[in-house]
Amino acid sequence: MTKTIYIMNGPNLNLLGKRQPDIYGHDTLDDVERMCADVAKTGGFAVKMMQSNYEGGLVDFIHEAREHAAGIILNAGAYTHTSVAVLDALNTFEGPVIELHISQVHKRESFRHHSYISMRADAVMAGFGVNGYALATQHMGTLI
Amino acid sequence: MTKTIYIMNGPNLNLLGKRQPDIYGHDTLDDVERMCADVAKTGGFAVKMMQSNYEGGLVDFIHEAREHAAGIILNAGAYTHTSVAVLDALNTFEGPVIELHISQVHKRESFRHHSYISMRADAVMAGFGVNGYALATQHMGTLI
Amino acid sequence: MTKTIYIMNGPNLNLLGKRQPDIYGHDTLDDVERMCADVAKTGGFAVKMMQSNYEGGLVDFIHEAREHAAGIILNAGAYTHTSVAVLDALNTFEGPVIELHISQVHKRESFRHHSYISMRADAVMAGFGVNGYALATQHMGTLI
Amino acid sequence: MTKTIYIMNGPNLNLLGKRQPDIYGHDTLDDVERMCADVAKTGGFAVKMMQSNYEGGLVDFIHEAREHAAGIILNAGAYTHTSVAVLDALNTFEGPVIELHISQVHKRESFRHHSYISMRADAVMAGFGVNGYALATQHMGTLI
Amino acid sequence: MTKTIYIMNGPNLNLLGKRQPDIYGHDTLDDVERMCADVAKTGGFAVKMMQSNYEGGLVDFIHEAREHAAGIILNAGAYTHTSVAVLDALNTFEGPVIELHISQVHKRESFRHHSYISMRADAVMAGFGVNGYALATQHMGTLI
Amino acid sequence: MTKTIYIMNGPNLNLLGKRQPDIYGHDTLDDVERMCADVAKTGGFAVKMMQSNYEGGLVDFIHEAREHAAGIILNAGAYTHTSVAVLDALNTFEGPVIELHISQVHKRESFRHHSYISMRADAVMAGFGVNGYALATQHMGTLI
Amino acid sequence: MTKTIYIMNGPNLNLLGKRQPDIYGHDTLDDVERMCADVAKTGGFAVKMMQSNYEGGLVDFIHEAREHAAGIILNAGAYTHTSVAVLDALNTFEGPVIELHISQVHKRESFRHHSYISMRADAVMAGFGVNGYALATQHMGTLI
Amino acid sequence: MTKTIYIMNGPNLNLLGKRQPDIYGHDTLDDVERMCADVAKTGGFAVKMMQSNYEGGLVDFIHEAREHAAGIILNAGAYTHTSVAVLDALNTFEGPVIELHISQVHKRESFRHHSYISMRADAVMAGFGVNGYALATQHMGTLI
Amino acid sequence: MTKTIYIMNGPNLNLLGKRQPDIYGHDTLDDVERMCADVAKTGGFAVKMMQSNYEGGLVDFIHEAREHAAGIILNAGAYTHTSVAVLDALNTFEGPVIELHISQVHKRESFRHHSYISMRADAVMAGFGVNGYALATQHMGTLI
Amino acid sequence: MTKTIYIMNGPNLNLLGKRQPDIYGHDTLDDVERMCADVAKTGGFAVKMMQSNYEGGLVDFIHEAREHAAGIILNAGAYTHTSVAVLDALNTFEGPVIELHISQVHKRESFRHHSYISMRADAVMAGFGVNGYALATQHMGTLI
Amino acid sequence: MTKTIYIMNGPNLNLLGKRQPDIYGHDTLDDVERMCADVAKTGGFAVKMMQSNYEGGLVDFIHEAREHAAGIILNAGAYTHTSVAVLDALNTFEGPVIELHISQVHKRESFRHHSYISMRADAVMAGFGVNGYALATQHMGTLI
Amino acid sequence: MTKTIYIMNGPNLNLLGKRQPDIYGHDTLDDVERMCADVAKTGGFAVKMMQSNYEGGLVDFIHEAREHAAGIILNAGAYTHTSVAVLDALNTFEGPVIELHISQVHKRESFRHHSYISMRADAVMAGFGVNGYALATQHMGTLI
Repeated sequence: MTKTIYIMNGPNLNLLGKRQPDIYGHDTLDDVERMCADVAKTGGFAVKMMQSNYEGGLVDFIHEAREHAAGIILNAGAYTHTSVAVLDALNTFEGPVIELHISQVHKRESFRHHSYISMRADAVMAGFGVNGYALATQHMGTLI
Repeated sequence: MTKTIYIMNGPNLNLLGKRQPDIYGHDTLDDVERMCADVAKTGGFAVKMMQSNYEGGLVDFIHEAREHAAGIILNAGAYTHTSVAVLDALNTFEGPVIELHISQVHKRESFRHHSYISMRADAVMAGFGVNGYALATQHMGTLI
Repeated sequence: MTKTIYIMNGPNLNLLGKRQPDIYGHDTLDDVERMCADVAKTGGFAVKMMQSNYEGGLVDFIHEAREHAAGIILNAGAYTHTSVAVLDALNTFEGPVIELHISQVHKRESFRHHSYISMRADAVMAGFGVNGYALATQHMGTLI
Repeated sequence: MTKTIYIMNGPNLNLLGKRQPDIYGHDTLDDVERMCADVAKTGGFAVKMMQSNYEGGLVDFIHEAREHAAGIILNAGAYTHTSVAVLDALNTFEGPVIELHISQVHKRESFRHHSYISMRADAVMAGFGVNGYALATQHMGTLI
Repeated sequence: MTKTIYIMNGPNLNLLGKRQPDIYGHDTLDDVERMCADVAKTGGFAVKMMQSNYEGGLVDFIHEAREHAAGIILNAGAYTHTSVAVLDALNTFEGPVIELHISQVHKRESFRHHSYISMRADAVMAGFGVNGYALATQHMGTLI
Repeated sequence: MTKTIYIMNGPNLNLLGKRQPDIYGHDTLDDVERMCADVAKTGGFAVKMMQSNYEGGLVDFIHEAREHAAGIILNAGAYTHTSVAVLDALNTFEGPVIELHISQVHKRESFRHHSYISMRADAVMAGFGVNGYALATQHMGTLI
Repeated sequence: MTKTIYIMNGPNLNLLGKRQPDIYGHDTLDDVERMCADVAKTGGFAVKMMQSNYEGGLVDFIHEAREHAAGIILNAGAYTHTSVAVLDALNTFEGPVIELHISQVHKRESFRHHSYISMRADAVMAGFGVNGYALATQHMGTLI
Repeated sequence: MTKTIYIMNGPNLNLLGKRQPDIYGHDTLDDVERMCADVAKTGGFAVKMMQSNYEGGLVDFIHEAREHAAGIILNAGAYTHTSVAVLDALNTFEGPVIELHISQVHKRESFRHHSYISMRADAVMAGFGVNGYALATQHMGTLI
Repeated sequence: MTKTIYIMNGPNLNLLGKRQPDIYGHDTLDDVERMCADVAKTGGFAVKMMQSNYEGGLVDFIHEAREHAAGIILNAGAYTHTSVAVLDALNTFEGPVIELHISQVHKRESFRHHSYISMRADAVMAGFGVNGYALATQHMGTLI
Repeated sequence: MTKTIYIMNGPNLNLLGKRQPDIYGHDTLDDVERMCADVAKTGGFAVKMMQSNYEGGLVDFIHEAREHAAGIILNAGAYTHTSVAVLDALNTFEGPVIELHISQVHKRESFRHHSYISMRADAVMAGFGVNGYALATQHMGTLI
Repeated sequence: MTKTIYIMNGPNLNLLGKRQPDIYGHDTLDDVERMCADVAKTGGFAVKMMQSNYEGGLVDFIHEAREHAAGIILNAGAYTHTSVAVLDALNTFEGPVIELHISQVHKRESFRHHSYISMRADAVMAGFGVNGYALATQHMGTLI
Repeated sequence: MTKTIYIMNGPNLNLLGKRQPDIYGHDTLDDVERMCADVAKTGGFAVKMMQSNYEGGLVDFIHEAREHAAGIILNAGAYTHTSVAVLDALNTFEGPVIELHISQVHKRESFRHHSYISMRADAVMAGFGVNGYALATQHMGTLI
């Protein structure tokens, strides 16, 4: 069966491509999904794009991933910095986890420098723009 | 078209007028909405009262406001102190934002002295009781 | 009328008995409910088991408890450490509150040492495994 | 006898309307006094505008208020952040106290986020521009 | 041979039942010992109650427990927060350790929120009044 | 020539005996001066009572003391906690300095626990009420 | 019956008059006791001098004082800064407590600036040398 | 018209040349003024020496400078470390500002390492003795 | 002319492939260079691999890059956390900078969570093993 | 008369050789005494081994040392990190003091990184196992 | 023999005049040397300009200065904030040391507010541009 | 083949015996090497003395030690407190490591209390003067 990577996105990322394009670019989540699907296809696996504005929504996604996903690429947005619940959910997942941020969060406000996700993530990337999703997908292919 | 101000309320504010009346008074959110609607009418605009116990619910409200509201009055309750997600949502909103607290939060526990909302709000008020909603609505009339 | 104790569980506890059994054991929330129901029956009261992965979900549960519960046993999971909203909800509840953790959280990461729930809870227990639910239920019998 | 509200202003506020008009606007303290006097008149009370660049000067004003004022609106300027003496003076005053800042201080340097005045003030407002004086005066009418 | 649980009490607990009865109740340590002995008897084991006002006294008790006790229930009182020596002694004990506080220490002064004992204890309980001793004894029966 | 002790009082102490008599008692600064003058007379020296609400006023007093005083008893009130200027002035004074507080400041807010004056004072007393002035005067007699 | 003041001394104070006489002077605890007994006699009460190098010893003294003493003058020495046990014992004592330090501790190492005793003491004095014992005894006469 | 540099001095600097000559030397403010006047004369501008022990006094000086001075050399003494009011005043001044300390403050107590003045000053110097005034005046000549 | 990317490596990275292969793998810097050269070739640019154990050596490399490199990929190793000098050097470079760590540093000791390099880097990646070098090179192709 | 070195041991060290032999080895305090006595004999002096689980017991030992010991080797165990009383006692001792730890405490929990003893000790060693006692004794021979 | 002042420059200062001319101006280190040599010549002494990007290089310079220099002017650049080694080297130098920064470092990132060099420097200056070198050289003439 | 111990010395230690002899004594590194060589010879092994003022120099030494040394005695001087690079290098070395300081660093400035080296060192000693080198060499003989 084709392995699937779950690409999860947290709060406000439904606006991707619609807000602050100078920072986040013009690509929407749908565009990103297509881009990642192409990369995955080359590697012989699939991707599934998900988004929620709710902390509990991300927890639900991860519980689903326990059953159906070979790996998780997680852009938890603001919950990166505040959610122990998402960390705990990730701790119940056994596959590889890549933490992703579109912007270079370490150059922004200091409260964005701490990440609960990083305590579990196998790899972290920030500042690669939406291209980061493609690179993370590509790297996932070497892990699953 | 009549401009509309969104008045958003966070967790536990559905209990307004029903709990600790010595602190919060006997007015319910419905009463507050009527009071603000009167003020707004005088100024030629409208208000819409909203409430959610969910952090993601406030994010959703703000996304809606991006399309339909001229300004936001936000009493984020407990999420004031913990929600980067709400702050990020507000950062995508271009109109004026007033942060409001019914009680004087700076005289309460120290963890209530920090507000993520204040990093974006154009004005902040605390301790004016439910009358604060009316004053904020009145001030909004000078900004929109 | 039979008094009821609400036993509330926060994020990831729907996985109880299914993840890390070496830490959390093999009992599921259903098993725990049966165990507590037996204890409660002996004491002449009832229990109701609830679970949510959403912070706002716990707030909703507590609002319901204001009307229908004689006491609350709360294992807020990760929200223990981050949720002012749950604390505020508990502050509107007048009956006894017992905070419960299955594992001994004080031996884990330092961010798990702080609890917003403890600011309101009448009693706190950690590290008693699922047996803690039974002991807490038993103690509730002396308070309601 | 007509009740009087004292409106006290701390250091550098004698320059109001003369410096950084993009931040503070073009109204002077005299303009503000007239605006507040109008509001007060409607409510059947009076205002008295005062200003000092000296910490001890504010203490003196408050001592005078103990004898003659029904309420205090205080824009302590820089002494907001550094003066225990002003706080102690306010603690000897029995009427309502509103703390006011023209700009939204919580968006400025972090040393402006702490306020000794807030430990005593019944209400706090920041970022309403000089209109804040009028709103505070209006609210005072409901308290005295 | 009958297994014995040592129940150790730290400074000022010799006054139990004699001071601040509104907080600590009217039961003395002797009453507590009787209550726990009954619970233990049901489980087929015994308890031994001990008390010292001296940090070194608790260390001595624990050294004795290394030879003669199957488990330790420890209410270290004030030494909970200050004694590395008691922690080090506990680290040389191989059986189960339950940390107990009669009052809910997490609602008291912040220096009572840190516990050296918790770094070793298998379980912790606080705020169950003297009933906590009985519950801890009951739980010990499942561990030894 | 008769030696003179300067007894300096900082902000709000002009209200002594007039505010919060349950804390500060009914004696005014004049009463205190008479009480100290009696003690000093017995010891063969004199006292001079001074008060200012201004930080710079206390600096001026200390500069005067450099020329005319054998010792300083200083109740700097709120400036105790905030004034480096008063500390620097005291560092230019060569006689004995006693720091005095009427109330027990260490039981009050944490910002009152730090004293710049203590970095220079030879002795410190707090919580002795106005009787503290008499005791300090008496002790000064052993130092000058 | 003659009221008695307990004057308790903590670790190393048995060396008073024998070590560092430039700091602590040449008077021994016996000398101090005589000096205080004279002051007490004048006031119609008695003193009892006590010393222990053991934290538990001070706790025992305070327990004894609960039965027999009208007030406590406590120079807890090093335990001032580290003993919650002594604080807890003092909290069970109902009469007046004066905290005393021979040297001016606030000019010494920063770890000597914090006092657990001050959280309970009605008055605090430091830097009055052994004369402080006499002044404290004299003040006790006004409180018992 | 001849440009004038204001040289402002804060608390205790009226004692310059009279106290601690080993640290501050024997030159008085009058001597310093003459020295700087000579330097200024060479550069074709003038200086005006000012001193106040009052924080508000320095604020007043700076307000005057807004009208009459081409630059400010400010030795704010102790207010360097505590005065937001002086910083705010400086922020209303548009010419160059040099912060000066006679002694090398960074080798003194840690509370002297923070300077509010430095947040506005264009240049800072410390430890050059009274010669620093001359060097600062000389540098001012290159800025105005 | 072919654009060149400088790939700089800090202290201990000369041991890559020779130490702790379970963490760092078996590839040496030479292997990495070949891998990146292949990627670069595809993109029509070149790479140059550099390594130094000296902080000043990295500064020198960056100065050279100012003249000759189109972009910098920097694995500063331990200097990531301690070197302001490298940060300052990077601030003089105008092209894109990618910060790279082979291991996931955010899961290691807390002193590795702070990076001076991140204050300047346009993108950051950690935990991708030596494959990270290839991904970074690939991303560089989109920036130069 | 033969000079004597006091070798003092704090809490839990009576268990040396009996607990965690993988960390502390199999030598008991008696074995250590014999080993040190041999070293001392070679140097022409003697040693006396002491142990107490009580903080006050160590204070007593040091007071005795004031009269009878030429130097102190102190392994204060857990009191190293918490005892100001032991530090104060050491400050009354005039001979050389060596602080010793069997294990390398700086690799253990962070609360073991601070030592009150180090504020007085002339030399400190940690991690040399029981051989450290012999090396310290040997070094003492060069100091007394 | 002519006395020589060593003017040492730390990392990145070899780029002076070549990078960010709006901040650092257009003068190179060579220009600065000429400017200082002129000042020195007037005072009858000489200067020697040195620069290194290596922390150890600055240590070497200072060791050389111990033999050959009458004074040191040190612009340690980034090592100002991180180098204990340079501080230790300076502590072995007996002549006067002036710390210099071209820009006003106290207005930049907070990690630039701490200086190890200041713990030894006799005088400190920042924000005088390259003219600071001339002023420092001039002041050196009064010290050597 | 004879085993060799590398004795590495950090910045400024080339001055040993030449600076501050009251602190560091009159022995040079050459003298120390001879002393250690004698000790080593007795134990049947050899020593090699090394020194560098460069952080990278110490890293190079440790890399060399990986091939040629049986153990490392490291006096990293100032780099003890600032160098993660040296720690990382040590982490690649498999033999025993002893950290050594000639003076008792824990009695010096607080920034000298933290050691990166201690996170790896098997043993630590400070304050034994140059004799510490001999003791460390002697102890090494028991480890290799």
